[in-house]
Amino acid sequence: MEDESADPYLPYDGGGDTIPLQEIRMRGSNYNMSNGGGGAGGVSSTTHLLDLLEEPIPGVGTYDDFHTIDWVREKCKDRERHRKINSKKKESAWEFTKSLYDAWSGWLVVTLTGLASGALAGLIDIAADWMNDLKEGVCLSALWFNHEQCCWGSNETTFAERDKCPQWNTWAELILGQAEGPGSYIMNYFMYTYWALTFAFLAVILVKVFAPYACGSGIPEIKTILSGFIIRGYLGKWTLMIKTITLVLAVASGLSLGKEGPLVHVACCCGNIFSYLFPKYSKNEAKKREVLSAASAAGVSVAFGAPIGGVLFSLEEVSYYFPLKTLWRSFFAALVAAFVLRSINPFGNSRLVLFYVEYHTPWYLFELFPFILLGVFGGLWGAFFIRANIAWCRRRKSTRFGKYPVLEVITVAVITAIVAFPNPYTRQNTSQLIKELFTDCGPLESSQLCQYRSQMNGSQAYPEGAEATTTPGVYSAMWQLSLALIFKIIMTIFTFGLKVPSGLFIPSMAIGAIAGRIVGIAVEQLAYYHHDWFLFKEWCEVGADCITPGLYAMVGAAACLGGVTRMTVSLVVIVFELTGGLEYIVPLMAAVMTSKWVGDAFGREGIYEAHIRLNGYPFLDAKEEFTHTTTAREVMRPRRNEPPLAVLTQDDLTLGELQTVISDTSFNGFPVIVSKESQRLVGFALRRDITIAIENARRKQEGIVLNSRVYFTQHAPTLPADSPRPLKLRSILDMSPFTVTDHTPMEIVVDIFRKLGLRQCLVTHNGRLLGIITKKDILRHMAQMANQDPESIMFN
Amino acid sequence: MEDESADPYLPYDGGGDTIPLQEIRMRGSNYNMSNGGGGAGGVSSTTHLLDLLEEPIPGVGTYDDFHTIDWVREKCKDRERHRKINSKKKESAWEFTKSLYDAWSGWLVVTLTGLASGALAGLIDIAADWMNDLKEGVCLSALWFNHEQCCWGSNETTFAERDKCPQWNTWAELILGQAEGPGSYIMNYFMYTYWALTFAFLAVILVKVFAPYACGSGIPEIKTILSGFIIRGYLGKWTLMIKTITLVLAVASGLSLGKEGPLVHVACCCGNIFSYLFPKYSKNEAKKREVLSAASAAGVSVAFGAPIGGVLFSLEEVSYYFPLKTLWRSFFAALVAAFVLRSINPFGNSRLVLFYVEYHTPWYLFELFPFILLGVFGGLWGAFFIRANIAWCRRRKSTRFGKYPVLEVITVAVITAIVAFPNPYTRQNTSQLIKELFTDCGPLESSQLCQYRSQMNGSQAYPEGAEATTTPGVYSAMWQLSLALIFKIIMTIFTFGLKVPSGLFIPSMAIGAIAGRIVGIAVEQLAYYHHDWFLFKEWCEVGADCITPGLYAMVGAAACLGGVTRMTVSLVVIVFELTGGLEYIVPLMAAVMTSKWVGDAFGREGIYEAHIRLNGYPFLDAKEEFTHTTTAREVMRPRRNEPPLAVLTQDDLTLGELQTVISDTSFNGFPVIVSKESQRLVGFALRRDITIAIENARRKQEGIVLNSRVYFTQHAPTLPADSPRPLKLRSILDMSPFTVTDHTPMEIVVDIFRKLGLRQCLVTHNGRLLGIITKKDILRHMAQMANQDPESIMFN
Repeated sequence: MEDESADPYLPYDGGGDTIPLQEIRMRGSNYNMSNGGGGAGGVSSTTHLLDLLEEPIPGVGTYDDFHTIDWVREKCKDRERHRKINSKKKESAWEFTKSLYDAWSGWLVVTLTGLASGALAGLIDIAADWMNDLKEGVCLSALWFNHEQCCWGSNETTFAERDKCPQWNTWAELILGQAEGPGSYIMNYFMYTYWALTFAFLAVILVKVFAPYACGSGIPEIKTILSGFIIRGYLGKWTLMIKTITLVLAVASGLSLGKEGPLVHVACCCGNIFSYLFPKYSKNEAKKREVLSAASAAGVSVAFGAPIGGVLFSLEEVSYYFPLKTLWRSFFAALVAAFVLRSINPFGNSRLVLFYVEYHTPWYLFELFPFILLGVFGGLWGAFFIRANIAWCRRRKSTRFGKYPVLEVITVAVITAIVAFPNPYTRQNTSQLIKELFTDCGPLESSQLCQYRSQMNGSQAYPEGAEATTTPGVYSAMWQLSLALIFKIIMTIFTFGLKVPSGLFIPSMAIGAIAGRIVGIAVEQLAYYHHDWFLFKEWCEVGADCITPGLYAMVGAAACLGGVTRMTVSLVVIVFELTGGLEYIVPLMAAVMTSKWVGDAFGREGIYEAHIRLNGYPFLDAKEEFTHTTTAREVMRPRRNEPPLAVLTQDDLTLGELQTVISDTSFNGFPVIVSKESQRLVGFALRRDITIAIENARRKQEGIVLNSRVYFTQHAPTLPADSPRPLKLRSILDMSPFTVTDHTPMEIVVDIFRKLGLRQCLVTHNGRLLGIITKKDILRHMAQMANQDPESIMFN
Repeated sequence: MEDESADPYLPYDGGGDTIPLQEIRMRGSNYNMSNGGGGAGGVSSTTHLLDLLEEPIPGVGTYDDFHTIDWVREKCKDRERHRKINSKKKESAWEFTKSLYDAWSGWLVVTLTGLASGALAGLIDIAADWMNDLKEGVCLSALWFNHEQCCWGSNETTFAERDKCPQWNTWAELILGQAEGPGSYIMNYFMYTYWALTFAFLAVILVKVFAPYACGSGIPEIKTILSGFIIRGYLGKWTLMIKTITLVLAVASGLSLGKEGPLVHVACCCGNIFSYLFPKYSKNEAKKREVLSAASAAGVSVAFGAPIGGVLFSLEEVSYYFPLKTLWRSFFAALVAAFVLRSINPFGNSRLVLFYVEYHTPWYLFELFPFILLGVFGGLWGAFFIRANIAWCRRRKSTRFGKYPVLEVITVAVITAIVAFPNPYTRQNTSQLIKELFTDCGPLESSQLCQYRSQMNGSQAYPEGAEATTTPGVYSAMWQLSLALIFKIIMTIFTFGLKVPSGLFIPSMAIGAIAGRIVGIAVEQLAYYHHDWFLFKEWCEVGADCITPGLYAMVGAAACLGGVTRMTVSLVVIVFELTGGLEYIVPLMAAVMTSKWVGDAFGREGIYEAHIRLNGYPFLDAKEEFTHTTTAREVMRPRRNEPPLAVLTQDDLTLGELQTVISDTSFNGFPVIVSKESQRLVGFALRRDITIAIENARRKQEGIVLNSRVYFTQHAPTLPADSPRPLKLRSILDMSPFTVTDHTPMEIVVDIFRKLGLRQCLVTHNGRLLGIITKKDILRHMAQMANQDPESIMFN
């Protein structure tokens, strides 16, 4: 037998002298004690007998910035806390109240998050609308009204004229005193560009000075955080405040960006901040992430007015660990947020959804062909956008060019404004553009897109049952839309990644909606001029309204958004919630599926995963399959030519030796073994915990010197009489480290890491410790297998 | 050092002589080879160098009936198959086609499942409607028409009379020749009971003789199967056929049961049968379960016409392993099924949903109080029902009484028919009853429930804007509803668990809807007579229509269903899809949440979990938290007084000794260790695989005798010159068994079992093998901790 003298356990076949269960239970509780969760609830009285010094050491069980959390440990900590509260609750009324508060805190925190997200979303909507209209003019009767609100009280009743009311003054009217003519056009043009420049400048300066984390959409970072990474301050109050303000500025500046992604970030900030009110969530990184999952559902819920879609988005796209309890709470948070937004009523139509549409004609089987074409377009656009945008962002990261973010934002904003102004489809708010494209032409529609057959009947633009003759208006709209499409495609590539809050949903949907509307009108004209074709003959009679171009726009928008984000169910459900009818799910699914397949053929990553990889976050994607045949032995550290694994022995190190090991290496943790000879694994100790424990012991225990023996065993080793007082570190030892054998296929190892949320895993062969695999080793290995430079991908 | 001479691996610190990577990769692939998936794809040429005899052994890697599958192994097998197909696909056009077929088979199988589920659901709906009406009479003009279809062509245009048309003849009219009078009433009563008896008898006989698995709702068993248990024949073609037929009979017999649960079983049978067309699914138990998850979504989708709700039901309630890919395919299957059902149009209203409702009045905040009251009722009903039903089913299982299932069904059917006939609310189809209760009173409504103020205006039952005076009709309806409520509550307890197909959704919803409608009318009358109360003053003006009793019925139905099944999100989404408006989600959520909390206070199990436990299926619930502080050491086998763990040594057993170990024990698998002295773990071998491998070797290899040495190592041990030919069993050895240390808290072990879907896990202490924990050990331990008899819960 080997030197296991200090170890009181005998292996199973070593005889019948096993230890009484009670003692094992006490030892078992050490695991929990070591996790900083305080004494082990029901057994706290017995643990005191064990060792008076084994009190929880402050700081043990917390994490440094940019470190990965250990889900298993966090969940154990939470169960321990729960047990403690449960065992105490019968002691007094106060403890019972505390336990009730604890039980309800989950619902409280999601309710607060929902309320705050809804309120902030309403605020952002109203402010962005007002500032967007400020680029065109002001409402003299009430400065705080936007264009639409300004004209509500107007007497102009014709629909074509409803935008022009005397209360609303364009800048040209205000400054030059005239509404028409080239001079006033140039003045309006100038003021439009001026405001765009001002808003963009303010946004980028605020972000740069106060909260650098407020830029971008935030979804890649939130995905990383939810997968168990710590980025301090990313969801803090400064980020929240600055992101809310700069989001309004960025949207109002007319840049090709949306507010939907940043709204998820804003909601997550709310969730994070409210979770600090409840120790259950503030002190536990895993529980906090449950709140963040619910918050991201609330964010999408208010962004689109689609609570169910929001929950599915959180489930499909953002969350990592999503237990069913979280599903229910996310749903609740999403609903609360949606109802708060509805009572604020920022769109003034008491509709919850951003683009409410109702179509009156069904679709026909033949139309699936153009829908699938739109899906192909969406997939191609997605693949192209991801490549182009990542190339541009990489250039920004790697060259000198990235050092001037303010200049870059201003340049892009000015170019956007200058190019956008002349074209009415790019000049207006992108959300309004999408809404117009989605809307079916009806008798009340004043849009240029609906100027069919107006020559027949001057007063009514769209007589019921009339024929679908187009006018020059539609043709010029087609031209303008095509130009807008090209413009949006180019600008979005350069905009996403700027140092201002920028979402991708709205620009992607706009591109898809433009393409879809163009295809829709084309099919409509085809059906009109060739209604005797066998394709149209059956269902498209002369004079009947058989094609809905608005539906094409919606399908195109879904396809493009799907191509960029590779969302599936949640996307379909979000768009389904916009229309509220099952009728149009089939076209949507066909387009979204096609778009995903086409996009995946060019690369399986969505834009968020691509940005995660660009930034080198340690994110282990749950969707990506590991398909290689490597085993744990090939991935583990140390490799063949590397120095041996840094290990600690359980009872024959001195404090000085331990400190040398710690200072000589940079590993985050060390396996503890029985002895160098046997290499039998005892447990795992984290660097951070060891350092804290040593400091704590030096401060509190006397006689701890460099020569003190350090031991991780239950009982102190027998030492010579004159040796200094030994230091017991068992309380920080993780006695149940995860191990796999060296033969384990990496696909299983990756699965374990994903499903259990591990930080590291030890590799053994026939019971002997061989090496260690960390999450970063796995990411490095996966990069290597995909022929990428493994070192380039790590977080920097 | 110990006797590891035969082991070519040296531990990490033993020197630099590690093995070349290539060789490790070949060994790693043994893992995959051992799983019966054929050679290891890309490396198959090198594996041949290793050992020509290491061909896959037929039968290795399959499961016996009533055994638990190993998810990890199944997933590895599938990845291996995928790699093989991928590596071959460039070889020829045929291989490429095969790879395409393989890639598309997932979509094909869910499409087929959706088509079949939709078609069968339509068939069942039509047949059940027709047979249900057969109890009352026949359509003489066309025998195959049900009552409603029969009267479509009728000239009777008043709504009150639309049910009475000359083409439709009650049995009294046919036999006695008179429609009115006590004689004809008795004749109708008799025929009603006669048909109920006949249908019930046929149903139970068919189930008993042809497919015993066709009884019940099937959801508990499907949950168990999806969690990784094998029940052969449960989803087979006989079960499908008999369940479809007997479901129609059971529904038509008027028993207090619904067709929604059994429809999920029918859909899962379709999924299982179609998966046999595709080797990807037929040969892999884990992949097959993905299809079954999608099928159960399709089942709920057609049961309620709620595709999104169906997917969430599958996710929340039924499925165990639900990757995102499955989510997308489930959604697709659910949609296909819904559209097939809609084109069959069994309800004749071209609506997808069973109970389509549209309400015109909003709800007010004060109404939340009665809604929450309904939630409390739902929770109490759920808790009471579960206890009473389980007690009754346990009695049926344990006493002689359960031996006469036919008699029991007939008795219950006759009692149901006799009690149900006099009351119009129990006489009609339960679905129609729910529909009537959900529907708001409008001018076109002929229901007795809507006979308000008809004294004012004889011709119009519900004049717009009139006052809500009730008539004696409403009071008698109240009495009849109250009696129906009591009747339904009692009969449902005795009906669920009979040996006929029986769903629980419809009876539960009916009970809730009756209670809700009663509460709704009570609140309405309260508001009418006390409209000056401060509660009603603000929003309930005199003469206005401020309370919607139909909404109360819907909320009550959701609350009762929630109390019985403990569903949350999926339930709210299903009911949301019925009404299609976000407006009423808040009342629904309030009621469902209350119902769940109240129900959980009496016991956390839903009816399906309770039935799983009653039947002793080995089901590890993912929702139930393990809250005890025990460690792996306390749960593992062998216990203190048990014989030592049956282990195999890697290279010093003879075939005779191995066979003795196998025949002396009944364990399903044996750990393989380096030597008895060291207890170092090498791997794990399954009993089934060992038996098959020995038989295979005896058949194919010569010179295998009882004295042959059996070895699991890479190279044969050095043997004396005259010893018989040794037998190599490395190919069936699982070289990467899961291990935990004895200190691991059981909460972590349970988590690992749930998330990875393990069958067993080995327990080590400091690198030595101590014992084994199987899924059954965990279930036994959990029962023990909950103070239940651990032996009573195992499958029998």
